[in-house]
Formats: sequence, structure tokens, C-alpha cells
Amino acid sequence: MDRSGPQLRVGRGLFRVDGSVTALATSSRATLHDDFRRVRDYTEALAAPLSPEDQVVQSMPDVSPTKWHRAHTTWFFETFLLSPRLPSYTEFEPAYAYLFNSYYEAVGPRHPRPQRGLLSRPSVDDIARYRMHVDDAMHELIDDVADTDVAALIELGLHHEQQHQELLLMDIKHVLSCNPTDPSYGTPISEWTDAPDAHWVDIAGGDVGIGHDGRGFAFDNEGPRHVAYLEPFRIADRLVTAREWLAFIADDGYGRADLWLSDGWYAVQEHAWQAPLYWRNDGDDGWTVFTLAGRRAIDPNEPVVHVSHYEADAFARWRGARLPTELEWEHAVVSTPPSTLTDVDNEVWQWTASAYLPYPRFKPAAGAVGEYNGKFMSGQMTLRGGARITSPGHTRPTYRNFFPPASRWMYGGLRLAQDIS
Amino acid sequence: MDRSGPQLRVGRGLFRVDGSVTALATSSRATLHDDFRRVRDYTEALAAPLSPEDQVVQSMPDVSPTKWHRAHTTWFFETFLLSPRLPSYTEFEPAYAYLFNSYYEAVGPRHPRPQRGLLSRPSVDDIARYRMHVDDAMHELIDDVADTDVAALIELGLHHEQQHQELLLMDIKHVLSCNPTDPSYGTPISEWTDAPDAHWVDIAGGDVGIGHDGRGFAFDNEGPRHVAYLEPFRIADRLVTAREWLAFIADDGYGRADLWLSDGWYAVQEHAWQAPLYWRNDGDDGWTVFTLAGRRAIDPNEPVVHVSHYEADAFARWRGARLPTELEWEHAVVSTPPSTLTDVDNEVWQWTASAYLPYPRFKPAAGAVGEYNGKFMSGQMTLRGGARITSPGHTRPTYRNFFPPASRWMYGGLRLAQDIS
Amino acid sequence: MDRSGPQLRVGRGLFRVDGSVTALATSSRATLHDDFRRVRDYTEALAAPLSPEDQVVQSMPDVSPTKWHRAHTTWFFETFLLSPRLPSYTEFEPAYAYLFNSYYEAVGPRHPRPQRGLLSRPSVDDIARYRMHVDDAMHELIDDVADTDVAALIELGLHHEQQHQELLLMDIKHVLSCNPTDPSYGTPISEWTDAPDAHWVDIAGGDVGIGHDGRGFAFDNEGPRHVAYLEPFRIADRLVTAREWLAFIADDGYGRADLWLSDGWYAVQEHAWQAPLYWRNDGDDGWTVFTLAGRRAIDPNEPVVHVSHYEADAFARWRGARLPTELEWEHAVVSTPPSTLTDVDNEVWQWTASAYLPYPRFKPAAGAVGEYNGKFMSGQMTLRGGARITSPGHTRPTYRNFFPPASRWMYGGLRLAQDIS
Amino acid sequence: MDRSGPQLRVGRGLFRVDGSVTALATSSRATLHDDFRRVRDYTEALAAPLSPEDQVVQSMPDVSPTKWHRAHTTWFFETFLLSPRLPSYTEFEPAYAYLFNSYYEAVGPRHPRPQRGLLSRPSVDDIARYRMHVDDAMHELIDDVADTDVAALIELGLHHEQQHQELLLMDIKHVLSCNPTDPSYGTPISEWTDAPDAHWVDIAGGDVGIGHDGRGFAFDNEGPRHVAYLEPFRIADRLVTAREWLAFIADDGYGRADLWLSDGWYAVQEHAWQAPLYWRNDGDDGWTVFTLAGRRAIDPNEPVVHVSHYEADAFARWRGARLPTELEWEHAVVSTPPSTLTDVDNEVWQWTASAYLPYPRFKPAAGAVGEYNGKFMSGQMTLRGGARITSPGHTRPTYRNFFPPASRWMYGGLRLAQDIS
Repeated sequence: MDRSGPQLRVGRGLFRVDGSVTALATSSRATLHDDFRRVRDYTEALAAPLSPEDQVVQSMPDVSPTKWHRAHTTWFFETFLLSPRLPSYTEFEPAYAYLFNSYYEAVGPRHPRPQRGLLSRPSVDDIARYRMHVDDAMHELIDDVADTDVAALIELGLHHEQQHQELLLMDIKHVLSCNPTDPSYGTPISEWTDAPDAHWVDIAGGDVGIGHDGRGFAFDNEGPRHVAYLEPFRIADRLVTAREWLAFIADDGYGRADLWLSDGWYAVQEHAWQAPLYWRNDGDDGWTVFTLAGRRAIDPNEPVVHVSHYEADAFARWRGARLPTELEWEHAVVSTPPSTLTDVDNEVWQWTASAYLPYPRFKPAAGAVGEYNGKFMSGQMTLRGGARITSPGHTRPTYRNFFPPASRWMYGGLRLAQDIS
Repeated sequence: MDRSGPQLRVGRGLFRVDGSVTALATSSRATLHDDFRRVRDYTEALAAPLSPEDQVVQSMPDVSPTKWHRAHTTWFFETFLLSPRLPSYTEFEPAYAYLFNSYYEAVGPRHPRPQRGLLSRPSVDDIARYRMHVDDAMHELIDDVADTDVAALIELGLHHEQQHQELLLMDIKHVLSCNPTDPSYGTPISEWTDAPDAHWVDIAGGDVGIGHDGRGFAFDNEGPRHVAYLEPFRIADRLVTAREWLAFIADDGYGRADLWLSDGWYAVQEHAWQAPLYWRNDGDDGWTVFTLAGRRAIDPNEPVVHVSHYEADAFARWRGARLPTELEWEHAVVSTPPSTLTDVDNEVWQWTASAYLPYPRFKPAAGAVGEYNGKFMSGQMTLRGGARITSPGHTRPTYRNFFPPASRWMYGGLRLAQDIS
Repeated sequence: MDRSGPQLRVGRGLFRVDGSVTALATSSRATLHDDFRRVRDYTEALAAPLSPEDQVVQSMPDVSPTKWHRAHTTWFFETFLLSPRLPSYTEFEPAYAYLFNSYYEAVGPRHPRPQRGLLSRPSVDDIARYRMHVDDAMHELIDDVADTDVAALIELGLHHEQQHQELLLMDIKHVLSCNPTDPSYGTPISEWTDAPDAHWVDIAGGDVGIGHDGRGFAFDNEGPRHVAYLEPFRIADRLVTAREWLAFIADDGYGRADLWLSDGWYAVQEHAWQAPLYWRNDGDDGWTVFTLAGRRAIDPNEPVVHVSHYEADAFARWRGARLPTELEWEHAVVSTPPSTLTDVDNEVWQWTASAYLPYPRFKPAAGAVGEYNGKFMSGQMTLRGGARITSPGHTRPTYRNFFPPASRWMYGGLRLAQDIS
Repeated sequence: MDRSGPQLRVGRGLFRVDGSVTALATSSRATLHDDFRRVRDYTEALAAPLSPEDQVVQSMPDVSPTKWHRAHTTWFFETFLLSPRLPSYTEFEPAYAYLFNSYYEAVGPRHPRPQRGLLSRPSVDDIARYRMHVDDAMHELIDDVADTDVAALIELGLHHEQQHQELLLMDIKHVLSCNPTDPSYGTPISEWTDAPDAHWVDIAGGDVGIGHDGRGFAFDNEGPRHVAYLEPFRIADRLVTAREWLAFIADDGYGRADLWLSDGWYAVQEHAWQAPLYWRNDGDDGWTVFTLAGRRAIDPNEPVVHVSHYEADAFARWRGARLPTELEWEHAVVSTPPSTLTDVDNEVWQWTASAYLPYPRFKPAAGAVGEYNGKFMSGQMTLRGGARITSPGHTRPTYRNFFPPASRWMYGGLRLAQDIS
């Protein structure tokens, strides 16, 4: 994936937890039309290289079929915007409410997640029609929107769709990787220049401000902004590379229990991990990696990606370092001059040492939309930054991504940190 | 499915276990061309109503995607006929040898069966091209065939493809049934007239001949023909109907342990069986059934189908009867005047009381083809007859179908038997 | 285990399926007292070497704790004899009806089989008291017995207890084998002389009589006696030995798919079988085997034991032979002069090629006792003969033992057969 | 359990992460002898009411048999103290190194945890002898100890044994609860007086000190002491009671998805939770609870216990409150006058909102002992306080207990907190 997708300009803070409502400006309405079209079109552009057959398959319970992503993001607008707020709206197909709800308990029952790949119908063409039907109605609604609260919900829906754009790419990569013929999604092979030596950047501690301040769009889990006390620490100015990871493998990193958390060691043995996901040791031909452009040789300079939290943690321990907490990561990024830390959000998500938990005084939004983030605050670790496949303009320094510590199919890499003694 | 498909005329005993080889007559060559075309076309006709999306899905490990069936039957001809015997033949795509081998260990490794549904590629169009490529070469080979042994292998391949035609229909029915919208494969709804009262037909026992005599085609497991001693018994002149099954349900048949084999009772509770597969109690609307034409009301006169061996056995016990052994079934069919027993092979396969085991002196064929039947002679029960979806002309009175006793997705029903005291 | 246990003299045909009842002779009553005492004491003798700790453990769902066997056999007499037929009888402890029912659905709910090892109470001492309580009452009942039907039930209970004596030994062997310290149950090590060369014994076929004739005790599944037609065949005059099995292993018998049934090949890979259960390759020290006397070197002359049906079947195929059917086995044993076939019932049970199914006209007994055998006639293979650990006098040539084809913890070995061409 | 066990006087900070070593004072040596004897005897006193049968059973993978606890705590002293430091020491039995290692990878391989219940040998008596052998040697070692580092390791071993004393009680409760006869461990039934109304205690926030200061004993995970910034908050002065939990059940608390974390809701459905572990709705007889003294009626005033983190979290949300973070809990306890908060450490452990993660600058100890705490810092939530069954004197306000969020068999309850708005 190159990053040539449309820059989303949403981000004007229309979505407010405090629920304050004001009249929508005319210029904002025009921007909404424009943003809506850009984001929706980008999803279709991402699906375009894929055949109907490609769009049906679910390769593991975590993965959703491409056509499901296309339909679910559409269902979001139908369910939370059109049905409650556009009186003239006619549902495209009532069964979709059941088929394309992801996890909103408040909205009603839903098709079980691990069975999304059993649905050959509706067809890819049906879903294209569904998208057009909803898009037309949404533009009608945007014309009618008077208040910022509706605009804020539309904005949330667009950010939601951007998240699914990244999921679509993660998921189809996994689907294609299960095929022994190593098929290609079709993107060009990226190249990396030599990775420079890594340097530590020292960060002073103390009481610092953490979280989103409410100006511009943010998800509810990024706030409230609050104070945290940090010890002084160091953080690496660049990401960990494939070359470094090969050294970890060569030093029996996957075979030494002392480097691993107990759960991580168990996962290593249960899944027989010996390298990042998608890496393969081709013997005399060296290590190769499956990518969206098919299989190719590993470039030692590329950032390592598709490692679990357990692996990132073990690697850091092997290096005599540790992962930064998410508070450290955020504070380092916002308190240092631009480009002090490279590849902050354009290569790989960076695992942190922090469990995904609510910030002090966090309150989820009321209603079904409140299920968006809060109910997942258990059993997951946060990642910060952004990845090659993240939709342009989607993330912020306060953005909190989160996955279970054994997950590897998203674009998870790492940046090291260290105590200052 | 109606039975209007082409009547396959193969069945001239070209496939011989004894390996005797004679020159192929000219008329036989013409028939081979014709048979080959008919059988291959019928597969394509069965797949025609299905979209690319429909043809990818695998709804459980027992089920294979439609496009896999289309490719695997083609692989059979490529592997066992073209590659070894047509010098000019060029493999369509080397990876297919791995992707479309079903279970032939002697041929090499293969894609794991439960992961057939992960393969979005090759596409449905690729497989159509694969079929044409192989068909063209096969007609070339048929022109060259000099001996009956090659003709016999082709004949085997066509009977093999007929088996997969039935599997294709069983499997797509299961795939579509997993969709809460009850989609239709597209066949018309069949109607049944009133089922007549069932009558017992008395059959004398003694030393009887069992198995295929080698004249005309048969699978190796149907022979050798041999003598068996049977006690006198009775067999019902018609199949068990839905009306009778509803009475079994109403009498708490699924709730009374005393009616069931121990393994059957365990299966009832593990799977919470309360009716045949695809039946649903719609409350005031009565019982409905999912069919290849979608969901419809149950017709009390239709033969019951999609029951496991355990259910068939429990039902028979409830009726004070039992299932016939496969030897009894075969002897009753061949020793009574035509139409004494109705619906012998045109409605549902009929579970028997017999485990699927080799007949005396059974020897599988040499080589990979010997894996066709023999290695499955463990843990399965035989069914006799033939079903609505069986390809026309495919079965014989000596035909032995077999499935594990808990299987329900094939067209399994039953005919009762009883001891004569 | 040596075979020095008391020879049980029960076997006078008191248990009749036909339900005919006659007055019990005085001499029969004395014999019943005597038999009852001998069988019950033998169970206690078998448990005597085991500590309370040993008697609690359940090492897999198939295994039952020793104290459970001691209690369940007692429950059988309490439930089927004392409660219904001795008016003065007071139940020892009402909860035992739930705890010690094995599988009799007609008697009521029961403690789940896989959880028998969770019960630390009642204690081993409690169960000894339970046994004494029931034994006293049983002798009282025997004094009162007027009719042969009650005597027949007592006889059944004693044969039932003998079956559990063998299970007790099989089960404790498995329990102790799970302990890395290789503890001993305490029996002396048996020695074998050189195994002679095996010879084939030819058996003529034709219509032969099979099954128990009703004179003397037999389980219901051994009848009714009936005619079967057999082809001529050959059977080996001795059991397959460890030496032969080592040759099978050395010839990669566990690595060649062509030797195995499909389910067997799957089991080999799932369980990583490389030798019979309890065998271990100790490298330079050769193969050892865990026995009831601890671990020792394998004696090449000993009969191979603790192999599954799948392994026995694959071994036979490797040798260009096959397993006998159970009908062939029985007919060979009863139709040849004594000692033509060696070790028929004193070393290992012998797997046959037959599924465990009812004989023609088989009817289980009425009531809960009818659950004894009939409901297990599915998914299992028969073994014939008897083993070192079988209680003396327990088996007959018509005796049908049965286990699932993957089971290895019972004493299953084999004797080869072959077609006569 | 009453709390009449010996008050352990260890806690003089002999165990130091910084590794500083000084000479052991004579008075300290005498105290060590005394402490060692008291702690070791208390374990034996806890096991005394249990039969050999009771001490063998493992009712789920999380549970260990009583005799395993007795042996493992002994192994700890043998492995970390006697073998490396007492030259005259002879190992009691070499196999124990394998059997009784819990999770120390650096020490070598070990018997799999879920199979501890398969070991009938060594017997309970063997283990009593093992304990005496090690105790004698330990007193010899204590006489020889010159330096505080060895004393610190002994102290650690005693605190370790205290943890297993609590585990022993948790585990045997679970074992006995699996028995349908509701057996008793033998303790008297505790009584509770009326629970007073709960009141909120307001706590000011700001930069506060957290963690152990190194004076006196603490586990490594309690430090280093560090600064954290807390928002102002409220905490309840008493524990949540059974009466309140009954109201939660009555309000369909287990049936409302909106109250639960996503993982929690999944757990509710997977395990069909409808009440705390050990509670049972006996219909007209009301709710009963299984305790170490058998089954009894629930006392509405008793603190609720045996709830998972998910349940505690859902209950708090239902009450419009939340769980305190572990930092809030600790700060509240140390910053308020004694008895402001009741039942801080004498009834139930209190779930917090905090994941179990390392404190800033945390470093585990070097060597195998470093596996004690650090490697478990993943996937678990912390609990604070102490329980009825906790060994006397074992805990501190800085003590961090931790369990996976779905665990219920330990004594987990809760105390509510709230934001101050």
C-alpha cells in the first residue's frame, strides 16, 4: 500500500462527548458532503482489485470478508443516521440489520462473527447496490442536517469506515496468505533505504498532560485529557528493523524462556512461533515474507511488523530495553521537535507496555455508540502511531489502538525505550 | 432437483478388478466420447445457477466448495489418465496437483480438507478454463485408447464425477442453509401424493448370493460376489414418511434414552437434535424444511430425509422394528418382482444395520486408485438405494454408499425391516 | 498378573433371555453363596496392593478409579437385587445411587463419567464398609431365593464384577503409567519362552453354527445361536509377537499411509503413535515397556499387546494377511482339536475384523439390565479370547469383547488370518 | 477458617532486591528458626483434616492437590537453599525435582500442571517424610547462615509457603465443591452481624507515593516506590455484601449486556454464570452457598466473594460506581485513619481496575527467583487486601495479588469507588 489515498479532512471536532449542540455552518455542510464521498469512495477503491471469490473468504475468526466490511460500514450509517433521522428513508433490506451488525448489543442480535465467511449471499453486486442506496440517502440527510450533533455522528461514521479500511487490508492479506500459491493483492513492492543507527532520545519526566483536548475529532477513549506523573526515560528515534529481528532469531530469541512473559512463552510453544507472521525461512534462499504484493525477500532495513505484543516484549528484554508505556510514547511524540522520532505514524503501529484501560474520569457516550470503545477495555494492550495501510489522516498522537497481546495479523511493530538510571 | 439429467450409459464393465485387458471396440470409443461429454457437462449444468461467491464457501469440514468439486473431478482425469498416458499433455497449472488432491496419499501431499474454503484463487473462471483444457485433452486421449484398461479408468473417473455431482448438491444445500435469509439454489418444489399404507414383504432366507457379479460397471467394494446365509425377514414396501417422523417427535422420540444406541443418545444431547436436519418448528406455522428451493412447509407424505443412522435406528426401535442389514436390503430388492418395493433408488438413501466392511476376499485395486474405497472401511454404516439428487443411472442394487453414523447432510432416510418369528 | 485367582464356577445358565423360571435347587444355592464370596473377595484382593491415593485417580475419561470399581460392582447388587427383592434391606447411603451408576439410563441420573476422579469422598474405607453391608445382605437374599430368575441376576452380577476386575487392572496400569517414576502395582515379571514359528491352520467354510447355545451362562450378546456362511480361510496357530512388531516398526510401519485405514492413519498422526502403548524407545538401552510390575525390557517372544484395532489391521496388511472375522475366529476355535491354536484365551484379547453388531434375532433383556450390552452396538470392533488379567473362568469361545478401534489401554493383541485362494 | 493461625513475625526486610549483604544477627537467627517452624507447622495443620484421598485430587487445571502444595513448598527450600548452600545435604528423592517444580524454567523441566492430579505416588506419607527431611536440614542450614542474603531467601520461602497455604484452602474448597454430597473441610460456620450502610470516603488526589519502601519484607513486585498522580476520588468504607449482590441478580444483572465488558459478557454466556461461584438457588429454600464447612444459607450481611473481575466490574457499573485502581486503593488505605475503611484485609481480596503491570523501574531479581512475579505481568488484574483464609500477617497495604479476570475460585470480592465530579 502506498499512502496516495485521499487525505481525509474531517477532524473538526464535531463529535463531542459533552453533547453540546450548535448550528451547522454552511461551509461545514459542503465539507461533509465532500468528506463523505471521499471516504466512501476510498473503500470501494480498496476493494476494486478483489474478485467476488476473494471478497467472501474468512480465514480465521478475527478476519472479516471484504464484502462484510463494505456492508458493515454502510450498515453503520443506515442504523445510526438514516433510520432514526431521515423520515423518508426506506431500509435497503431488513435482513441486513442482522447480518451486518458487528457487536452492538443495544441494536439487537447479530450474525455470529466466526460465521461471516459462510454467507455467499448477499452478493458482491448486492452490496455495491446497498452502498449506493445508502450513499444517496446520506447526501440527502447531509442536506437536511441542522445541528452539529448529527454532523458529529456522520464524522464518527467516517472515522469508523477508515478503521475498517485498514482492517480490510489486514484481513485480505491474511486471507491471501492462506493460499499456498502466494497470490498478490496487487500493490507495488515498497523499498527501504538503509536504516540509520538508532539513538536514544532522553525525555524528562514529571507531571505531564496526556490525552486529547477535545479540539478536533477524537475517539472517546483518547480522553479526558488528564495529568500523569512520569519518571524520566529514553526512547529510540527509530523503529526496530528486520535486521535486528534476524539477530534476535539467530540468538535463539524464540527458544529462551527467560526472555518471555509466562503467557508469551506459552504462546510461543502453542503456536510454534519462530519468526514474525508471514516470514518464512526458505533455507539457502534466505528469509522471505508474504506481502500484499506477494512473497519477496526480506529487506533488512524495513521495520519489523506482524509481531505480537509478547514478541515485542521479549525482543525488548533481549536488547536490555523495554517497551515504552503509552503515556511515555505520547508524551515523547508531542514534546520533542518534529522528526526527532522518525516513522512515528507512517510505517507500523508500535506496541506499548500499557494495558488498554480507561483514562481517569472516562465515560463512554450514551446509547449504542457508547459500545464503540469502552467495552473492550479488558485483556488488550495499546499500540500507538499508525501503519502503512492506515488511511491517510486517520491517526493522531493521542490515538489509542488496541489488540490482544497474542495478535499478529495487524501491522504491529515496535520502538524501544529504557529507564534513565 | 428433478431427475431430468442425462442418463449415463457407462456401465459396460470396463473397470475390472481382475485386470484383464482386451482391445477396445470402435463402438465403445464413440460411447466413451459421448459419455465423457455428458457427465462433464452435467457437472457444469449443476454449477451454473451458482454465483462465484456461492462456489467458494465451505460451511463445515465435511463440505467442499462447488469450485473445488469442479476442479477435483478434473484433477482426477489429469492425474490418473492424462499425465501418465497422453505424452503430449501439458499440465494446466502445477499447483493444482496439491490443491485438488482429495485423499490419495500415494499421489502426494495435499491441501488440508478443512481449509478448502480458504482458497479464493484459482477463480471460478480459472476452473472453467481448467476443465476445458482437460476435456480437450481427454477427447484426444479417447481417440488414442487402444485397450480396455484405459477405458475402464475413464469409466471410473466418470462414476467418480457422478458421486461428486451428488456431493456438490448436498454441499451447496448445507452452505445455503447456513444463511439466515434461506436462499434458493433454484429448483422447483417437488410434490408428493399421499403415501399409501406400508406393508411388510416377507423374504425367505437361506444361502443367497450377494454382491456384484462383474458384468457391467461396479465399484470394487461391491464385490466379490459371495454367498451369505440369511434368516427369513420382512421388509417394508415403502419408505418412512415425514408424517411418521412427526409422530415419533410427538411421542418424545428424541427424549427417551431407551430408544437409542449409547453413541446416538450422546449425539442427541451433544448436538441438541430435536428433528431431522433442515427441519424447523415454526410454532403456529407448523414445521418447515429448508430445501434446495428455499424453505417450505413439510409435506407429511414425503419420505423423511437428512436423518442420521442413530436417528433411523431409534425410530425403528420405537416402531418395534429394525433397520435391514445391507445384505437383506440387497437380497429383497433383487429377489422380488419390480415395484414390490417402491422408491428403491429415486428418493432417499436408506440406512442399513450394517457396518461398512469388506466382503469376503475383497482386494482393493493396486496403486492410488486402490485408495478409492477400501481405506474407508472403518467407522461407517452403509446406505443402499439412491436419492433424488443422485445422478441418473449412477446406482445399482449392489451399490454401497457409506457415511459415519452421525452424518446428516447427505440424503439419508430409511425403510423398516423386522424379524419373522 | 498371574492367573492364580479363584476359578469361578458360575456358568450354569441361570441367566436366560427367554425368561423361563424354575425352582432353585438346594445345591445351586450353596454354590451361589460360594461363588458370590469368591468373586467378591477376588475384587478386594486385587485392590489390596493399592493405597488410598492410588484408588482415587482417574487418568483419562475411559479409566475409572479403583474405588469406583469397588463401589459400582456393589451398587449393581444393591440396585438390581437388594432394593427390589429383599424387603428388609436398608440402603447403605442414598447418594451412592447417583455416584455409582455407570450408564443405566433407566435407573436414573448419574455422576458424569469423566468426573469420577474428582470424588475424594466416600473414602476407600467407606467403600469397604459399603461392600460388607451389601455382601451381608446378599447372603441373606441368597438364603431366600426361590426361583432361578433371581439366581440368574446374581450370576449376571458376578460376571459383571469379573469384567470390572479386568477393568480395575487395565485402569490402574494406565494410572500408574502416567507417573514419571514408573511405579509398580506389584506383580512379578512374567517370562516367555521362545515363540515357535507360526503356522497356518486351514479351516473349511460352509454353513456353520455361531453363538452361544444357551447351556451355561453367557451374556445376551453371545446369542442367539445362528447359521452363518463362511468362505474357507486360514488362521495362525499363535499370536503375533513383540519381535514381529519390532520388525514392523523397523520397516517404517507407522510411517506408510498405504498400510492403514484412513481413520487409522489419522489416529497415527493425531496421537503420534510410533509403537504400542506403554512401549518406549530408550535408545541404546533398546525398547522397554511399562507393566504392572514397573518398566522392563521388551521380551521379543511375548505376545504384542496394547495395540489399537487400527494398528492390528495395519500390521496384518503389512504381513500380507488380515484379521479374522469374529465368526471365523469362533469357528476356528471350536472346530479344531484343543491346542491346535495356542494362547487362545490366556494372554491377550485378539482384535477381529468384525464390527460389534447384534446377531440375527438378537433381543436385549427387558428393563435396565437390557442396557448391559445392546446399546453399545455401534462404533466398536470385537475382540475374542481373553487376557492375562481376565478373571479366571470368565470367558468362552463365544465371548464377545468390544472396544472402539482407537482404544489401546485394554489388553488387545492379534492373531493373523488369510484367504485361501 | 478462623484466623487463629500463628502470626508470622518475618518481615524484617531480609529479602533485598539491591543484593546488599550484611552479617546476620544472632537474634535474627533465633527468629528464623522460630519462624521457619511456625510456618511449616501451619501448613501441616491445614492439611491435617484431609484424608489421603482428599489430598490427591485436582479438580481443574488451576487447582493443585493438597499433597502437591505440601511437597512444592518443600521443594522450594530444597532447590533454592539446601542444594546450593548446605554441602552435607542429600536430596530426599531426585525425581521430586521434576515432580514438584511449579513454573521455574531456569531450574529445569517439570511435570505438566494439569496432570498434577494423576500422581498417586509419592504418597501422603512419603511427602510427610520429605517435609521432615528438609525441615531438619533447614534448621541445620539456619545454624550455618552467616549472611543476610541467605536469610532473605529463607524469608522469601516462608512467604511463598504462606501463599500456598491460602492456595491449599482455595483449592481444597474447589475440590470438595465438585462432590455432589457437599462434604465439609471441617471449619465452623462464621457469622456476620448486620452490615452497616456504606459511606463514601473522599480522598484528595495529586502526586502521591506508591509502593513498598524496602523497610521490612515485601515481594519484588511491590516496588520500587514511586510517584503517581491521582485525581480526587471516593472509596466505600465497607465491602459489597451478599444482600447487594442479590439485588444485582434480581435486577437481571447477569442478563444485561450493557453492564458488562465485552470479554465479561462472553464469559457470562460461555460459563452460564448467574451468581457467584458456589452460590446455588435452591428455590423455595432460597440461596445457599458451599463453604469450607459445607453448604449453608447465604447470610445477606456477609461480604460477597468468589466473583470474577468481570462480575465485580459489571456490579460497579450497575451501581453507578467503578472499581478503584490499585493505586487509589493503596493510597486510600495508607492515607486515612485506621478503621476508616473496614475489613481492609481480613475478609476478601478486593478487585481493582488495574492490570497487573510492573511499576516504573521495576527489575526482577536475578536467577530463577526472578521468575517469582515478573513473568506473570500480562493478562491479569490486581486484587488488594487479604482474605479470611490468608495466612495471618501475610499481607501489607502494598501487597499486590493478581489473577486472570475470569477467575473465581480465589476469595475475590470488591469495594466500590467513584469519581468526584
